[in-house]
Amino acid sequence: MQNLKEKRGDQTYETYQSISVDYIKGGYLDGTIGFGAKPAIIVIDYQKAFTTFEATLGTSDLIQQGVENTAILLKEARKKGVQIFFTNVAWREDRKDFGMWKGKMTQCLKEATLGTWGVEVDDRLKMEDGDIFFYKKWPSAFHGTPLSTYLTTKGIDTLIVTGCTTSGCVRGTIYDSFSSGFRTIVPYGCVGDIIQSAHEQNLADIHKRYADVLPLEKVITYIREL
Amino acid sequence: MQNLKEKRGDQTYETYQSISVDYIKGGYLDGTIGFGAKPAIIVIDYQKAFTTFEATLGTSDLIQQGVENTAILLKEARKKGVQIFFTNVAWREDRKDFGMWKGKMTQCLKEATLGTWGVEVDDRLKMEDGDIFFYKKWPSAFHGTPLSTYLTTKGIDTLIVTGCTTSGCVRGTIYDSFSSGFRTIVPYGCVGDIIQSAHEQNLADIHKRYADVLPLEKVITYIREL
Amino acid sequence: MQNLKEKRGDQTYETYQSISVDYIKGGYLDGTIGFGAKPAIIVIDYQKAFTTFEATLGTSDLIQQGVENTAILLKEARKKGVQIFFTNVAWREDRKDFGMWKGKMTQCLKEATLGTWGVEVDDRLKMEDGDIFFYKKWPSAFHGTPLSTYLTTKGIDTLIVTGCTTSGCVRGTIYDSFSSGFRTIVPYGCVGDIIQSAHEQNLADIHKRYADVLPLEKVITYIREL
Amino acid sequence: MQNLKEKRGDQTYETYQSISVDYIKGGYLDGTIGFGAKPAIIVIDYQKAFTTFEATLGTSDLIQQGVENTAILLKEARKKGVQIFFTNVAWREDRKDFGMWKGKMTQCLKEATLGTWGVEVDDRLKMEDGDIFFYKKWPSAFHGTPLSTYLTTKGIDTLIVTGCTTSGCVRGTIYDSFSSGFRTIVPYGCVGDIIQSAHEQNLADIHKRYADVLPLEKVITYIREL
Repeated sequence: MQNLKEKRGDQTYETYQSISVDYIKGGYLDGTIGFGAKPAIIVIDYQKAFTTFEATLGTSDLIQQGVENTAILLKEARKKGVQIFFTNVAWREDRKDFGMWKGKMTQCLKEATLGTWGVEVDDRLKMEDGDIFFYKKWPSAFHGTPLSTYLTTKGIDTLIVTGCTTSGCVRGTIYDSFSSGFRTIVPYGCVGDIIQSAHEQNLADIHKRYADVLPLEKVITYIREL
Repeated sequence: MQNLKEKRGDQTYETYQSISVDYIKGGYLDGTIGFGAKPAIIVIDYQKAFTTFEATLGTSDLIQQGVENTAILLKEARKKGVQIFFTNVAWREDRKDFGMWKGKMTQCLKEATLGTWGVEVDDRLKMEDGDIFFYKKWPSAFHGTPLSTYLTTKGIDTLIVTGCTTSGCVRGTIYDSFSSGFRTIVPYGCVGDIIQSAHEQNLADIHKRYADVLPLEKVITYIREL
Repeated sequence: MQNLKEKRGDQTYETYQSISVDYIKGGYLDGTIGFGAKPAIIVIDYQKAFTTFEATLGTSDLIQQGVENTAILLKEARKKGVQIFFTNVAWREDRKDFGMWKGKMTQCLKEATLGTWGVEVDDRLKMEDGDIFFYKKWPSAFHGTPLSTYLTTKGIDTLIVTGCTTSGCVRGTIYDSFSSGFRTIVPYGCVGDIIQSAHEQNLADIHKRYADVLPLEKVITYIREL
Repeated sequence: MQNLKEKRGDQTYETYQSISVDYIKGGYLDGTIGFGAKPAIIVIDYQKAFTTFEATLGTSDLIQQGVENTAILLKEARKKGVQIFFTNVAWREDRKDFGMWKGKMTQCLKEATLGTWGVEVDDRLKMEDGDIFFYKKWPSAFHGTPLSTYLTTKGIDTLIVTGCTTSGCVRGTIYDSFSSGFRTIVPYGCVGDIIQSAHEQNLADIHKRYADVLPLEKVITYIREL
């Protein structure tokens, strides 16, 4: 696994961890959730509206990196028959289904329209027949979607979260995964954000409380040993 | 309102706003949700486990400030009959209801035990008879609680969110309030955190997407004009 | 409105009401929820898998009647700009999204497959551009769908429920509409079932507790006066 | 197990099953969900407001029978360490938390007030330290409560539902248990209702679609073999 490209510029797993120092000063300790017996992977919003350079919000190096690392992770997961979920945000052209985004994000989400290129999964991730895809309309992949029931029916106890953005839909999904009682794992380098400081701070927030943020290698090792 | 103490050290409304510059560079624009016709206020986790200096997580200046500013806000709200909700986190002593916190926060949440001082609302906030109090067990005040139904039954369209911590339960609540279709307002200075960098970054994340983070004065002006 | 065909065989509004006598003997009283200020209509599962005679579950007179009465209701609603929602059940051909139906309904739901005729809305109901359609996978139109957020964002306080089957997805939707805090109205004659005894008993159960089951005329009068 | 008193008057397991004939004529088949690996039991609303003869809604033979059969079931479950949940409905005296019940049930639910005898679990059921109790405010034990997270965190895949009333909160809970992806089992004789026809029709509706309605003996045999 020497070619895992988790480092980019000054963005490293160590950098993110250093934010944790403030947490430890504040009285938080370091804990671990740990892996369960039956994982699934979810890929959040790695859709062309966010992963192609033509898109309004598509200019992020961290997201490019995230897509490529996630492709590596999915390849390993398929070998073991791990269930893979994909979800993209998508709205009607008339935005009657846009909810409260209207006040804030009308312009920068304009390419996430049903039936257009912006809501297609990035080509590098190659969905397969047994994967489960669904659209969502709000940050969390759980809110207003069948995800929770899918996980419960299939006896899944561990949700491995990838996608973008770390400070938006990834974090929203992690809140719900944690609160719903699933073990939640974030392979560092498989999530990306447009804003680097947001990416790092959010990963620190998440790791202190809700999920294990781990190097991708550790997640792949776990999957290989299933 | 000259005595609104929203400034503390280098923590000001302007400082938090400067984080937004990265967002604007990334393609986000500034938008506004706006106030609705019928607001409610929720006070999240201003309970003695987080607001008294004896508590493990009780040493935060931002939280002290948040409690005091929230007391000012509630006084104004009561004059207008605005419904006030309080929620605290609380678990059984045997922690059979602790969910996935067990991996991360066992030690630092040890004072939030049902039937003990740690789950009482801070004395400065003085609950009254018509207020609605409920316990919660996970970050969002919506998750596994009756809050959403209360709001809908009462025809509330705007949720004003106060409490702690900004990067924890406040943010979790804001995700759900936004995703559930409520106008969500955060009076800056009424929310607090143990970690200042987390506080600021999270407010910037929130303001760019999900809620209006506003000076307390603006929120009080809105309430006075109801 | 003399041509409202709510009567069919021994199935009348009075018959259903007579079941209520048992409830009154049991200690229940008759109460009324009442109409709110802003209604929406939802049409549940009036899809070809249940409304055409070729379909396994398509032989019901009550459902035929329900479709025709609902067409009348929608026509009135459109004149007043009332928001109309349609939802159908639909699953993947491989049924990886079938949840717990697998034990019970594999055979009789086989025509509700994505991309086939069975998941199309009945032609008599004529969807229009401003209507909102979504698929669901479980009985309630709220479970795992964006419906609740749509209602809240649009300020809707009253949900008028039509569709089939009364003892299945209609009742499941009414539970959630009631529990979520919406005023819930069932125009008698706009809901249908395959089993007449189930239809009548379920309407009695519902009317005693959760919703106003009303003659269609009363609902139309309310809509005309909006 | 010869003393299992599931028969009372003309109310027998066979009677309820005969209703199914209409379902079979309508195109439904008989299917089975089956038991999973890790069950829990929930006891719904066997509280004094519904189980004592003094109470407005407390005169039901079926409910008396249900309490006694549930006591037998719980005794077996405790031997095997099966997690037991209890939930009661309870509201504030001022009913600010009453939601949409206000239109229908104000009078007949008046004894389910927080802090009074009506919200205590029936004495015959003897709660123990490891049991988990929570209040609810709407029919389903899932709606606005932590139940779903408890089940997921504990790896429970099978929910055995007891309590009252069959046509009210029991059925509401079964909808959500089914829709959430849990195997749902109803031991016939452990659920009760005030209205016998409602009891029987609802069990038929449920068994055809959402849950296995089984003789208590079969459920006890399963538990003994865990």
